[in-house]
Amino acid sequence: MKLSQSLSQTSKTVAHDTDSINAKLLTQAGFVKKEAAGVYSYLPFGRRVLAKIEGIIREEMNAIGGQEILMPALTPLENWKKTGRDNVEIAFKPTEKTVLGWSHEEIITPLAKQRVKSYRDLPFAAYQIQTKFRNEPRAKSGLLRGREFLMKDLYSFHTTQEDLAEYYERAKQSYFKVFERCGLKSFLVAAGGGDFTENISHEFQVLTEAGEDRIKICEKCELGWNVELNISKCEKCGGELRETKGSEVGNIFDLGTKYSDAFDLNFANKEGKQQKVLMGCYGIGVSRLVATIAEVWNDEKGLIWPESVAPFQIHLISLGKDEDVKKEAERIYKKLRERNVEVLFDERNCGAGEKFADADLIGIPLRIVVSSKTLEKGGMEIKKRNSEKVKIVKADEILKK
Amino acid sequence: MKLSQSLSQTSKTVAHDTDSINAKLLTQAGFVKKEAAGVYSYLPFGRRVLAKIEGIIREEMNAIGGQEILMPALTPLENWKKTGRDNVEIAFKPTEKTVLGWSHEEIITPLAKQRVKSYRDLPFAAYQIQTKFRNEPRAKSGLLRGREFLMKDLYSFHTTQEDLAEYYERAKQSYFKVFERCGLKSFLVAAGGGDFTENISHEFQVLTEAGEDRIKICEKCELGWNVELNISKCEKCGGELRETKGSEVGNIFDLGTKYSDAFDLNFANKEGKQQKVLMGCYGIGVSRLVATIAEVWNDEKGLIWPESVAPFQIHLISLGKDEDVKKEAERIYKKLRERNVEVLFDERNCGAGEKFADADLIGIPLRIVVSSKTLEKGGMEIKKRNSEKVKIVKADEILKK
Repeated sequence: MKLSQSLSQTSKTVAHDTDSINAKLLTQAGFVKKEAAGVYSYLPFGRRVLAKIEGIIREEMNAIGGQEILMPALTPLENWKKTGRDNVEIAFKPTEKTVLGWSHEEIITPLAKQRVKSYRDLPFAAYQIQTKFRNEPRAKSGLLRGREFLMKDLYSFHTTQEDLAEYYERAKQSYFKVFERCGLKSFLVAAGGGDFTENISHEFQVLTEAGEDRIKICEKCELGWNVELNISKCEKCGGELRETKGSEVGNIFDLGTKYSDAFDLNFANKEGKQQKVLMGCYGIGVSRLVATIAEVWNDEKGLIWPESVAPFQIHLISLGKDEDVKKEAERIYKKLRERNVEVLFDERNCGAGEKFADADLIGIPLRIVVSSKTLEKGGMEIKKRNSEKVKIVKADEILKK
Repeated sequence: MKLSQSLSQTSKTVAHDTDSINAKLLTQAGFVKKEAAGVYSYLPFGRRVLAKIEGIIREEMNAIGGQEILMPALTPLENWKKTGRDNVEIAFKPTEKTVLGWSHEEIITPLAKQRVKSYRDLPFAAYQIQTKFRNEPRAKSGLLRGREFLMKDLYSFHTTQEDLAEYYERAKQSYFKVFERCGLKSFLVAAGGGDFTENISHEFQVLTEAGEDRIKICEKCELGWNVELNISKCEKCGGELRETKGSEVGNIFDLGTKYSDAFDLNFANKEGKQQKVLMGCYGIGVSRLVATIAEVWNDEKGLIWPESVAPFQIHLISLGKDEDVKKEAERIYKKLRERNVEVLFDERNCGAGEKFADADLIGIPLRIVVSSKTLEKGGMEIKKRNSEKVKIVKADEILKK
């Protein structure tokens, strides 16, 4: 993508109502635009990051047998009456009989009921990457807590508690992998079940000052507890707990039979007797992940995207008005694109200072500069965003790699 | 995917309120589930078809320079007041100050305003694949007219009418390509501008009895007119018009300065004078495409997916309880998957009749059967969904291809 033509543009001014580092950096660097409290548009850079994260999540969900589906946002109020969640404060109701889905147990459970007759139909797991709506009284912290946001929600269905526990453990490991692949170290934190279940649930927390959750992490074994659980020592190893702040990028719940009870979701066991299906649910905040990565990976100059989720792999800069420079930069741009390398090409007519500052702000992993100076030295200059080292290399060497 | 484990299952019974061939077939074959009037869940088969269509649309939109973005569904009512579209009957309003986007001119125009200062910033085009909400008084015809549906909307911005006209033409050609790649012959049909513009617009219509539009197509040059325009002869070649029914899978609008006026979207021309930006908008009904393909591509036995949008390329069936058959079918399934071929594997314990009927109902392009009989004959049986010809081939010959 040529930067001069991109709808994503950097900006020197910060909106007056920017309430967090992620909102500030993502807005200034041209990734998002705020449309209302807790509501954002994703510009081309931001859309690309979303797609990268979605791709990682899809791979990991498919790897644990998740079947991708897509449920609607407009959901019948009557379904929510069955679980007693029809009057939850955060629910938007566009009509008297409709709720905008803020979670999808009320849709997936009747859907599973259509599928499940006997123990032979179990277990299975289905997920979606879909837009959720929550009328948060105080939408804040940029993309960390939105009123409209992208979420991955996986639901699993089982005959026995052991089978559910086993899958819960697989999902746990899969979640660690997703966050690691997104460049984030996550901590497993025990918490209450919120609006979802009366059982203990588990959160995946990334440590950041911008996080809204107060958690205690064991200094020895790294297990954590949400402070709402009132813990003084590590329940596992007895280690000291350190209180800190976290951003909850994922959560997993043992739902038991709460929703199977509400919708009468049964299966015939091997003896032909009817039993209730056991359920788990597993969420990842996709847009919150974008925000969390921005909170964790930045410096005073701007964003520093991990390679796996960067909008582009290379930020190519041409400097000055020299025709040879322009030609060489264009050639490199073309060659890289032919090799399916994602390149942002800054070919604007502006000074070196502005171009370097924008490259640092946008935060693409590798910067390549072509100028009269680099051509004299026999090539182009390469620099990683997270390092100060600068190296001159021959263009064709890079293109070969 | 193994059929026994899939959330997508076929059903012999048809829901009593099924109002169209697409709803009947897509529901019975396990592609979708109706959640409310005009609101559907996409089960694994349906989600796969959506993904295929999204992929085709993305490629073609990128090819005409479209930049992918994602705008929200929750949009501020004040934006709609500026264009006078705040009281449109089909608008859901989840709060007093919020409209669920049923189109996105009111969001993209202010977004472009942030970007566009001078003629140098133009032209550009941005698109999204996003969920739209329209409170249709009579949601009907299955997925053809939904209250919640997936849409691709592209918007383009220009300095001159000539430039807009040129891009409009490119978009037109791109649309023909999208529909052709989805296995559909589409007709360009002139129509009024509806709620979008006072100019003439163009629809892309696919001829089907299930279509809601009455159109007249020239028997000579194949240009068309919506009957609302009152035409007796072809305006281009004078040919006879044939009245027929169509499903509108796409539409394109010359918006002129309607939205630039409302949001004061200007650019400085070469002389430094302020001028209004000219806009075009271009929609494709993604979920409507799924329905239209189902309406066009079926026979008395079920769906017949064009290869490009089929949920799987191969429907593999093992017949009987013979262990050699099971082993060979498993081996073929594994080998195909290793080669990244999308296979639906029907390894259920049910009879040949049921398996064949389900294969015809689901409509995957190529069926492969492994049974004692085919093994005796030295291989497996292959048959295309749209042909009666059956052929015995050696497994390893197919795997090589």
